[in-house]
Parts: sequence; structure tokens; C-alpha cells
Amino acid sequence: MSTYTAPLRDMKFVLNELAGLEAVAKLPGFGEASPDTVEAILEEASKFASGVLDPINYSGDQEGSKWSDGTVKTPKGFREAYKQFCEGGWNALPFEPDWGGQGLPRLVSTPVQEMWKSSNMSFSLCPLLTQGAIEALLLRGSPELQKRYLPKMVEGRWTGTMNLTEPQAGSDLSLVRTRAERVRDGKSGDHYLISGQKIFITYGEHDMSENIVHLVLARTPEAPEGVKGISLFVVPKFVPNEDGTPGKRNGAKCASIEHKLGIHASPTAVMVYDKAVGYVVGEENRGLEYMFIMMNAARFAVGLEGVAIAERAFQRALAFAKDRVQGRDLVQGGKAVPIIRHPDVRRMLMLMKSQTEAMRALAYTTASAMDYAHRHPDAETRKQHQAFVDLMIPVVKGWSTETGIEIASLGVQVHGGMGFVEETGAAQYLRDARITTIYEGTTGIQAMDLVGRKISREAGATAKAWLASLKMLDAELAKSGNADIKALRAQLAAGAQAVADGVNFIVETKDPRAMFAGAVPFLKLMGIVAGGWQMARAALAAEKKMASGDRAFLEAKIATARFYGDHVLVQAAALRDTVVKGSSGVMALSEEQFLGA
Amino acid sequence: MSTYTAPLRDMKFVLNELAGLEAVAKLPGFGEASPDTVEAILEEASKFASGVLDPINYSGDQEGSKWSDGTVKTPKGFREAYKQFCEGGWNALPFEPDWGGQGLPRLVSTPVQEMWKSSNMSFSLCPLLTQGAIEALLLRGSPELQKRYLPKMVEGRWTGTMNLTEPQAGSDLSLVRTRAERVRDGKSGDHYLISGQKIFITYGEHDMSENIVHLVLARTPEAPEGVKGISLFVVPKFVPNEDGTPGKRNGAKCASIEHKLGIHASPTAVMVYDKAVGYVVGEENRGLEYMFIMMNAARFAVGLEGVAIAERAFQRALAFAKDRVQGRDLVQGGKAVPIIRHPDVRRMLMLMKSQTEAMRALAYTTASAMDYAHRHPDAETRKQHQAFVDLMIPVVKGWSTETGIEIASLGVQVHGGMGFVEETGAAQYLRDARITTIYEGTTGIQAMDLVGRKISREAGATAKAWLASLKMLDAELAKSGNADIKALRAQLAAGAQAVADGVNFIVETKDPRAMFAGAVPFLKLMGIVAGGWQMARAALAAEKKMASGDRAFLEAKIATARFYGDHVLVQAAALRDTVVKGSSGVMALSEEQFLGA
Repeated sequence: MSTYTAPLRDMKFVLNELAGLEAVAKLPGFGEASPDTVEAILEEASKFASGVLDPINYSGDQEGSKWSDGTVKTPKGFREAYKQFCEGGWNALPFEPDWGGQGLPRLVSTPVQEMWKSSNMSFSLCPLLTQGAIEALLLRGSPELQKRYLPKMVEGRWTGTMNLTEPQAGSDLSLVRTRAERVRDGKSGDHYLISGQKIFITYGEHDMSENIVHLVLARTPEAPEGVKGISLFVVPKFVPNEDGTPGKRNGAKCASIEHKLGIHASPTAVMVYDKAVGYVVGEENRGLEYMFIMMNAARFAVGLEGVAIAERAFQRALAFAKDRVQGRDLVQGGKAVPIIRHPDVRRMLMLMKSQTEAMRALAYTTASAMDYAHRHPDAETRKQHQAFVDLMIPVVKGWSTETGIEIASLGVQVHGGMGFVEETGAAQYLRDARITTIYEGTTGIQAMDLVGRKISREAGATAKAWLASLKMLDAELAKSGNADIKALRAQLAAGAQAVADGVNFIVETKDPRAMFAGAVPFLKLMGIVAGGWQMARAALAAEKKMASGDRAFLEAKIATARFYGDHVLVQAAALRDTVVKGSSGVMALSEEQFLGA
Repeated sequence: MSTYTAPLRDMKFVLNELAGLEAVAKLPGFGEASPDTVEAILEEASKFASGVLDPINYSGDQEGSKWSDGTVKTPKGFREAYKQFCEGGWNALPFEPDWGGQGLPRLVSTPVQEMWKSSNMSFSLCPLLTQGAIEALLLRGSPELQKRYLPKMVEGRWTGTMNLTEPQAGSDLSLVRTRAERVRDGKSGDHYLISGQKIFITYGEHDMSENIVHLVLARTPEAPEGVKGISLFVVPKFVPNEDGTPGKRNGAKCASIEHKLGIHASPTAVMVYDKAVGYVVGEENRGLEYMFIMMNAARFAVGLEGVAIAERAFQRALAFAKDRVQGRDLVQGGKAVPIIRHPDVRRMLMLMKSQTEAMRALAYTTASAMDYAHRHPDAETRKQHQAFVDLMIPVVKGWSTETGIEIASLGVQVHGGMGFVEETGAAQYLRDARITTIYEGTTGIQAMDLVGRKISREAGATAKAWLASLKMLDAELAKSGNADIKALRAQLAAGAQAVADGVNFIVETKDPRAMFAGAVPFLKLMGIVAGGWQMARAALAAEKKMASGDRAFLEAKIATARFYGDHVLVQAAALRDTVVKGSSGVMALSEEQFLGA
């Protein structure tokens, strides 16, 4: 059996050498993030993940959450774990001290969240959704709403949900039909009555908290059609009493939960709102705008799920490969050896390890940029970092999740026949990971965001600025005499050129269909090259620290970076060709020519 | 809902234009395979697949096979379907008329088997395993064994299994421990008593047939160690009486069945043999050799599962994409349109369609070569075809299954959130497909077979002969004025060069670790280029038939081939680089440097 161990060594390497934790901790308001505090937080989180969340991951998957007559029972151990989670202050960790949080940089909460996701993705979704709802209220909630809901939600006593999707409105939220009618109420203030059906509501109903705060997209009767007529409402499961305790049961019912491929412990609810009391967040008709403000954080979090599942799948595959004895050493012969000795198993493990490290480094570096974008005193610096964050969010989301699935699948493969048997645990990661390229915007949606909003709209300015920084890195790499770094440098240069060609194509093409036909290949290209950028930075940092640091770790980092170049970055040119020259075949067939038979 | 429809138009195109059915039907013994008969068989098989097998695929997955006290109950409808299957003569179809079969070329039974696999992979495994057992008996069984077992098994009244794996012996069969002790018996002939545990036995126990004939690998007491001491035995569930009816219950018990990621309806048994009566097949100690003779057929069949699942996943995704209305047309705007209108959805569908067609064409062409290898009157021609079959079997198996998983995963993605919900049906294909890269030899095993036995050992002779035929095809492609064919020609030439470089590396390297470190990337390269070879042949055939044929289909074939070039074949150069230059990073780390934490 493999138990989860937080990869603290790599996490700290990335935090300190690549994501600049020391400098981030000096940004205004991050005084709490001293090295000792961060160290202690990571250690404690690691213990909680290994000791509390990991042990109920497989059992939670097998048991699943169960619906009965409008209520949902989470699997054995989830209620208790959630109680401990809140008592330990973990739910509050990412928030401001004003609301009971610890005022830590996102760069610090990111590895902590990675641990929750690695050890128990289903569990982690509950606090994740609560966090999204809290952020919506922090950004646009009235002081009244904030005062009533935020302390309970930050503590974790009340959880949150996001209600976007309806059966006819998935990626296309302009089709939302849920209605909200305003009720003038002189006594307790105006409210709305919300009616409609929402689907795919993560933790829409469960038994871990005393109240559930739904954030619901709906239309008022006079709202304009389309996306500009959607408002955002708070709809509590129990309408709070004046004293703040949960009061009357609201008309927000869980009609059923989905029978899903993965994340079985996380209940995915069909919610029916029948004249449920709700309160508008911010102004009417601006709900989608508010959702988009939060979208970056949510998409980043899902990208991090890709990293986290990849890490977990790697750990389990590694443990198996060291343990399973099968086949002789190719060169030495003799008795059967652990399969980690075999080149193809080693190749799979290296694919898992190198890409996980690359994705982690990109995610943490992006988290660091979020901290700069929020907290740096200089407006221009904030703006530059925000532009970088905006560019990289769809990459972190799309690339890390697509790669996370591939890595989880490799994890099954390393196990051979045992990987297909559920008791082994490897298959669960593949099933769980499979949702990550879908929710919070499919990979296609991320890719359209990337090429459309983030590149084409600004003529590639931010992407080009990033490419310029790759050129500077290339000059640094050129100084190294290390053969692995030299090999990686060549692959990275070719990758950067491929991105540049792709950006130019996107900026120059007049054909939106051609641009979007290559959007996902371009996103993969960006991800692969951005990962290579991080691995090259990591290799350089490892080279510099070699004399003073953990030699075995640092040498492995350089070798892993080189492997990444030869096995992953190497794909860049083909992706560029597909982006630039591959669009004609995409739309060539008429719909009628798509006949299966 | 999507129901399975056999892709008869594409199947017939491949049979006639690419795999040379007309010439195959003229080989000795294939007199039955007249165009009318083949047409009728395909039509009837298509009806059976759509009408009987497809409707119990999802329900069979949900219900699963259930173990109870040594017996296994298959899901609702499976017994009846199997009865119909046998009564319709489908079980006997691939066999010789001498034993009750129809004497058809493998090229004809291949599309029929694709239909069973597409419509219900779990069901199809029962006749598949029976077929493997029949082939073992045909090849090496004594006349006595053949007479006793074959008629029942060909009819389908008795089913077969293959018992190779033990807990400590998976890919490495040298570790098999099951024992076989010879009992001298003057009356009814010598037999053996078999004792040991076998795992992963597909249809090792079930309720669809009156007897189960296990083919079991085991060691006699005096057998040499390792692979040269393994013998093959027939171990019936019920020992046949003198009159051929099933007699005494044998000591072959199903201890449990596995709880698996997919193919839930197909029971995967743990079999315990306790002094079970068995009969040796052929000679003692040659069991593994016999298994290898059958291996090609079994591996080909699993490769075909990749094609079949890909086809089914494509059909379901296509139906959804035509039906699901979401988002406006990128250029025309206006109201929401079916998502097939969106370039990225179209790209996914084209990836599914083009690769499925390429894999089908390669599989059928390989089946055609099997027929030549078995039946051509000229020994040298047989030998050449057998060499081509030997080269392509690991490619058909490894590449079609790896790609089948990717396509099934794309099928989930096309469905968005609905794809993650089991009721939709798309997720099952991904779960079912996931076993195909594992059983009958993992992709790593296929790749080692390809680069080691099939290329290195003969200094690349057969691979080079195939590459020479690609050069001739290039000359044909050069004659076309069609822009799509021109673009494809360039990609195929680059792909062929990449394969040539890879073959040279494999033949010349002195480092077996380097060779095997690139084995899977090389297998993928071979698959992609072999698929491109078929798509190029298909495009030329379509161009030639354009004036007289089904224009919409033929134009689509050419456009699809071009898409394949720009989106799939384009990856060849990067794979070559990984094979040729990527080995250093694979083995760079010590085992101790592989620390998750």
C-alpha cells in the first residue's frame, strides 16, 4: 500500500528557488509568512493530509455519497475529518485576518491546497467551493451579507456552492433560465424568490456543515436576454435568523445526486429552487461579470488538482515499481528484479515525475504572480503581474489537467493488471482526474480564452513579453557547461520559437475558425513550453546550489529537467505545425459527412 | 441516446480498396468468401450487434457479473444473448468447416469481430477466449483431445479460458508455480493433477455455457526452471463422460472475481486448482512455445478492441455533438447551435474519426496478410507475409489500444459534464478501453517485442522492406494534383524518414537499455506512420473512385486523411528524436533518487 507523503522537498525547492517566497513574504500584508511559519504550516498540513484525508480517500470512493429523500450522507469518516479540518483552522487559512483567516500569500496556501487535493480530491472540493463562494461575497457582497455569512463560512461551519449550470446551459451560460423575483420587504430588507433547476452542484447537499450557502445565477423578469441579464444570488439552505443561527428551511432542495465516473465521495447535486429566498450579490445583471472575477481562482484551483492527482498517482506507481518483482535486468540478467529496473517502467515514472514537477513549478510561479498582482505597491507592477496571471491561468488549468489525466493513466499502466483492479487504488486517480478537464470550463473553453481573450485581443503583448523573458533565460542557460542543461536549452529554444510562431499566427489570422481550430494544440504547446521554462529555471537553480545543497535531489532535478526536454518539450514543433497549418482539415467535412455508418 | 451502427461503408471500403478482399477470397480454401456471402454476413452481424449486444452493454456494465459461493451470475440478458450468438453460428464463424465453422478468411471475420467488440466488449471476451483455446487445441491438441473438445467449443456450447497469470507471475511467466503431477492410468489414458492459483482469468467462471475448458500453464515436478519448464494443460470444469456429456465436477474452482475499473460484465476470476484433472496439450515443457504461437491472434484481437471501442466512442460523441445546442456560431453568430459547429468540437471528432479509420485500415490489412501467410500456395510469399504480420502485430496491439483509450477519453470530453455522468455511456468506453493496453502483454511488452524480436534480431529487414513500399507509395502520391493528398504526402515522407531513423538506431545501438528506453515511443511512431500509410492509400483509392463512387464519402476520406497528416502524422519527428536522443534521461536517476517526498 502506498500512503500519501507530501513532496515537501520539491514544494520548498519550488517555493524558494523558483517562485520567490522570500520576496513575496515582503509584500504588504504578508508579514505572517515568515520562513518558520511557512515551514510549520507545510509540516502540519502534510500530517493532516497523510493522517486524516488520505486514509478515507479509497473508502470514500468505494462507499460514495448517498442520496435519500433530499438528504445526502457523505462516506464514513468525512464528517469527522471535516470537523477536524475546520477546528485546525485549515478552512480559514487562505483568508484575511479580518474574517478569521491567516493572511497568508496565495503562494503559501497553494502547496497546502495541493496536499488536500492529492490526499483526497473529493474531500477537498467542499472547502474549495466554500472558498469560491466566500470570494464572491468578499468581492461584491453587501456589508450586511458579508457580516451575516462570511465569519461562518470562513470558519467552515457553513459551506458554499456555485450554481451555474442548468440542463440546457452548460458552457453557454447565456441560456440560463432560473428566475429571481424581487420581493419588497420593508421589515427585513428586499429579497428575491428564486425558482429553477441547477445541475452539477458540487456539495449542493451534504451532512458535514450546519448550513449551505448557495450562490446562484438567475434572471430577474425584466433582465435583458443573454449574458447581460444574469444576476448572482445568495440562497441559504436555512435562512439565517436575526441572531445568525440557521433558521427556516429554504425552498432549495436536492432532487438527486449524479452517478459519476469519479469523485464519488463528492456529491454532485441536482438542485431545485422553488421560490427560495435569495439575496442579490452586488448589482442585478452583473452576475456573470462577478463570476468571471472569481473564475481565475477557481480555474487555478482545478489546474492544481491536475498537479495533485499526478503527484499522488506517481507516488503510488513508484511504490509499486520498487516493490513488484518481475523480469530480469536487461543487462545483468540473473534473478527477477523490481520492475523499476526496467527501462520502460523507468520511462513511465520519469514522465510522471518530470511533468508533475514542471506543472507544480508553473502553478506556484503563477500563484506568486497573483500575490504580486494583488499586493505590490506599484500599480504598473500589479498590472504586469495580472496580465501574466491572466495569460497563464488557462494554461495551468488546461495543460495541468490534461497532463494530470495522462499521468494518472500512466500510473495505472505501471501497475499492469493490478492497475485495473479497483482495490489497488491507481484506477481511482484516473477516474477522479477525468473531471478536471471538464469542470470550471473545458479544455476547449480554456484554449479559446487563451487564444482569443488573452492573446489575440491584445495582439500577443503579454505572451511576447513572456517570450522575451525566455530569451533572457536562454542567455543564462548558455553559460552552463552541464551537458543536460545544454540539451535542455536547445529544446527550450525550439519550444519558445514554436510558441512565437503560434502567437504570430493567432495575432495575424483573419479567420476565427482557423484560430480556434488550433486553440487546444496551442494551449498544449504553451503548457509544454511553460513547463520547460520552469524546468530550465529549476536546473539552473539546482546547478547553483549544488555545492551547498542536497546533492542527490539537485542532481535528480537536473536529470529530470533534461528528460523533460527530450520526452516532452520535443513535441513543441509538431504542435506549432498543427496550430499554424492544421486548420484546413478541421472544418473540411460537412455535418452530413460525419456518418458513423 | 446513441445506438451502435456498424460502419459498414468504411468497413467495406477498407476490405475492398485497401485489404484486397477479392484477391484474398481467391486463396485456397476461401471459396465461401464470395462478395454476396461477405455482404450478407456483414449485414447480419451488424443486426446482431445493434439489436442484441449493444442493448445489454450499458446495463451489463452497471449490473456486472456477480460471484456467489463459487458460481458467477452474468448480467441480465447475457445468457440469452450468448445462446442466440451460438445458435446464429457466430461462435463457429472463424473456424474450419471440418469443425463446424464457415472457412472464411480472417479478413472477413475481423470486421465481424470488430462489431462484437464495439457493441459489447465484455460479451465479446467470452467467444474471444474460447477462440484462443480452440486454436491451442487445433495447433497442438492430440486427436483424442480435439475430438472430445473441439466440436462443443466451436459450437459455443462449451467455452474456453486461458490461465497464464499467477500473483507472482504476470508479464514474467518464468515465475509460474502451478504444479501438474502425472497419473498413470491404464484404463482411460494418462492424465495430470493440477494444483495452484491463477488470477485474471477472463470468463473463468460464468453461467452461459454447460462446460468451461481451461487451458492452464503449469509445471511438472521434474520440469527445468524458468520458461522452458512450463507445460500447457486442458482442465475442464466438468470432466467429460465417455459419451461426451459433462461429467464429474473437477477441482477447478472460482474463488472470487475482481472488482475492476471496466469490463464489469466480463467476470475476471481467481481460479484455484486443487488436484484438478488435466490433459497435456502437445509435449511437456513446450507450453510457453504454444502460447506464443497463439499470441499473435490474441494480440491482434485486443488491438481490434482498440479500434472497436474508438468507433463506438466516436459514434456516441458524434450523436451528442449533433444534438447538443450550446454557444453561437463563431462567424455567423445568432442563436445557439449544435456543438458540432464549433471548431474545437469538430477537431475532437476529426481526431476520433481519422485515427479510428487509420487503425481499422491497418488492422484489416494485417488480417489480410495473415490470410496470405496461412494460405498462399507459395512458401516464400507466405514467409514474407508472416514477417509483415509479425512486425505489425505489436503495432496493431500497442498503438490501437493506446489510441483507443485516447479516443474514448475524447469521447467523454465531447460530452462535457454529461460525459462524466455514467448514465451517458461515454465513460464506460473509457473504463472498458483502459484494460486493452494491459492484457495480452502491456504496451511496454509489445514495444520490446517490436524493437527486440521483430527489428533488432533481423537487423530491421522486414521494417526496411515495408519502408521501401512506402517509397513506392510516395511515387504514387506524387502523381496526384489534389492539395490534401500533396499535404499528406509531405507528412508521410517525413514520417517514413523518422521510422527509418528509428530502425537504424535500433539496429545499430549496442546499449539494450537505450533501445528499450525508446521502445514505446518507437511503437507509437510506427503506429502513427503505419496509420498514415493506410490513410494515404485510402486517399489515393478515393481519388480514383471519385467519378464512379459515393462522392460525399470519398471526399470525406481524402479530407480525413489530410487531417490525420496535420494532426497525427506530424508528431513523427518528435517521437524519432525521443527514440534516438532521449534515452540518457530515462535511466539517469538512481532508484534512491526517486523519492516522492
